[in-house]
Amino acid sequence: MSSEFSIIDHYFSRESKTHDRHLTLGIGDDAALINPPQGYELAISVDTLISGHHFPENTSASDIGYKSLVVNLSDMAAMGATPRWVTLSISLPEDDPKWLSDFSTQFFAVADQFGVALIGGDTVKGPLAITVQIIGTVKSGLALKRSDAKAGDLIVISGSLGDAGAGLKIALQQKHAVSEQEQALIDRLNRPAPRVELGQQLLSLASSAIDISDGLVSDLGHILKCSGVGARIDAKRLPLSDALASYCSEADAQQLALSAGDDYELCFTLPPENQSMLEQISKTCGIALTTIGEITAEDGLMIENNLNPLHAQSGFDHFRDVES
Amino acid sequence: MSSEFSIIDHYFSRESKTHDRHLTLGIGDDAALINPPQGYELAISVDTLISGHHFPENTSASDIGYKSLVVNLSDMAAMGATPRWVTLSISLPEDDPKWLSDFSTQFFAVADQFGVALIGGDTVKGPLAITVQIIGTVKSGLALKRSDAKAGDLIVISGSLGDAGAGLKIALQQKHAVSEQEQALIDRLNRPAPRVELGQQLLSLASSAIDISDGLVSDLGHILKCSGVGARIDAKRLPLSDALASYCSEADAQQLALSAGDDYELCFTLPPENQSMLEQISKTCGIALTTIGEITAEDGLMIENNLNPLHAQSGFDHFRDVES
Repeated sequence: MSSEFSIIDHYFSRESKTHDRHLTLGIGDDAALINPPQGYELAISVDTLISGHHFPENTSASDIGYKSLVVNLSDMAAMGATPRWVTLSISLPEDDPKWLSDFSTQFFAVADQFGVALIGGDTVKGPLAITVQIIGTVKSGLALKRSDAKAGDLIVISGSLGDAGAGLKIALQQKHAVSEQEQALIDRLNRPAPRVELGQQLLSLASSAIDISDGLVSDLGHILKCSGVGARIDAKRLPLSDALASYCSEADAQQLALSAGDDYELCFTLPPENQSMLEQISKTCGIALTTIGEITAEDGLMIENNLNPLHAQSGFDHFRDVES
Repeated sequence: MSSEFSIIDHYFSRESKTHDRHLTLGIGDDAALINPPQGYELAISVDTLISGHHFPENTSASDIGYKSLVVNLSDMAAMGATPRWVTLSISLPEDDPKWLSDFSTQFFAVADQFGVALIGGDTVKGPLAITVQIIGTVKSGLALKRSDAKAGDLIVISGSLGDAGAGLKIALQQKHAVSEQEQALIDRLNRPAPRVELGQQLLSLASSAIDISDGLVSDLGHILKCSGVGARIDAKRLPLSDALASYCSEADAQQLALSAGDDYELCFTLPPENQSMLEQISKTCGIALTTIGEITAEDGLMIENNLNPLHAQSGFDHFRDVES
């Protein structure tokens, strides 16, 4: 395998496309140096993707390059932060120039799209795994946390849910040919759109936010637990795509929307007095925003019109299920 | 395997031992929030350790917990930065409570010793690998880079070199019994001391610094390349420990000191007018500081009194070898 130094040099060292006066020293020393902007907090998050666990083993290098950055951008979106700098650690079984080229090309395409600079890297020989840590900036005191949802707040979802879950099922079948609808679902798995602009639009408006990586029930559950509240949601109001509706029954689609992860949509809570802003934000970001329920003072998550018992779903401990 | 959420909760979420007014939001949300101190730059670095590659597969969880943090502390030392915050990503083949307990206990022991807070984590199921990203603070403009060494500067090494290389050889033999000297060498491999205080003492004094992770020839080579200079070092002046001297011949010890990595000592360059400070710094930090040569205007690395050709050593492209 090429030395770590030459891999970083060859695939990951490049002049930044945009001048960044807050980046004092980029990749290539013992550490990068950032001169943080005044009046802002730094939002910091890390995610690891493991082959065969976070993506099917037949996933392309390009798709992995895309997703490894996007899942971190999604964390920034959930905080309302502007993504700025990332470090990247790649564990790769062998020196594979095509893989590295495909990966880095797509990784940088996403980085450029969102104005993110790669400031540090580590490449090691080992089983395929990608760890990205991201640093974003958010005006001091404004970040969207999980802990500030209040009874009476609306629960709103961006885009549609369940597509990535269906996409995973299809991808694991390793079909030779997939329909256009099926490909759309696979694309939602491999190429989720991070809702970075939406997160920023929600600053000072939403009371809490989270990105849906583990599934709505699990991730909304984190908001409920951290905020010490409950919620009532209507399964019939879950936003489902046409592709998902044509792939499976409504009951199965609802189930995927509730419990499959990887959609990377935002789930946020909105004080009712800010409800009138939703339409404008939806237009500004070009993304559907659907109110699916509300926060309750009473503990627990009630899913109305639910067709299947959900007690077995992981991730949320204080779980109540109501058959309507 | 326990869910990611419960592993983080159980082993890695805890109240910080020291009040940190710059840490606005710790572990447990989509991202941590830091309110960076004014007048400081942030130094950011990432390192991944892979089982069987960066440490022998029989390395204890405790030693891995120690080393995964220390190699990152060492990067901060090499910048003269004060380590502050880390994120931790663990890939673990199976839910192993004893492993996680041993790992986290030692990880936090080191974190407490150096005043570092864990602000984010990700645990995934997969082959054993640890990625730590670290953020430190350093007064704006003072960080020690690799690029500012000047002809005439002294080249200085902390502690002793080659011990970890010998320790690795011994560890890989998987002996049932090792001598006290051999154990001392293994300890240098598994429990390297990050030279954090030394790095801070060198601010405004040293012209460049790097930590020796890949071996002196390779790492000094990075300074030479980044600074556009050469160097002349005397192999006979390489600092060798008694344990290493008793383990192998002087020639083999020199070879290990030149090319084996993992010692995590600092190699720094010092303008000659600051030479008089070395003794006081050595006393303050309680660590030997040995001048092994000087920076030259002429390109290339000359190793005097060298016993074996070193052309095959990796990591330094502009390499000249002089047999004395």
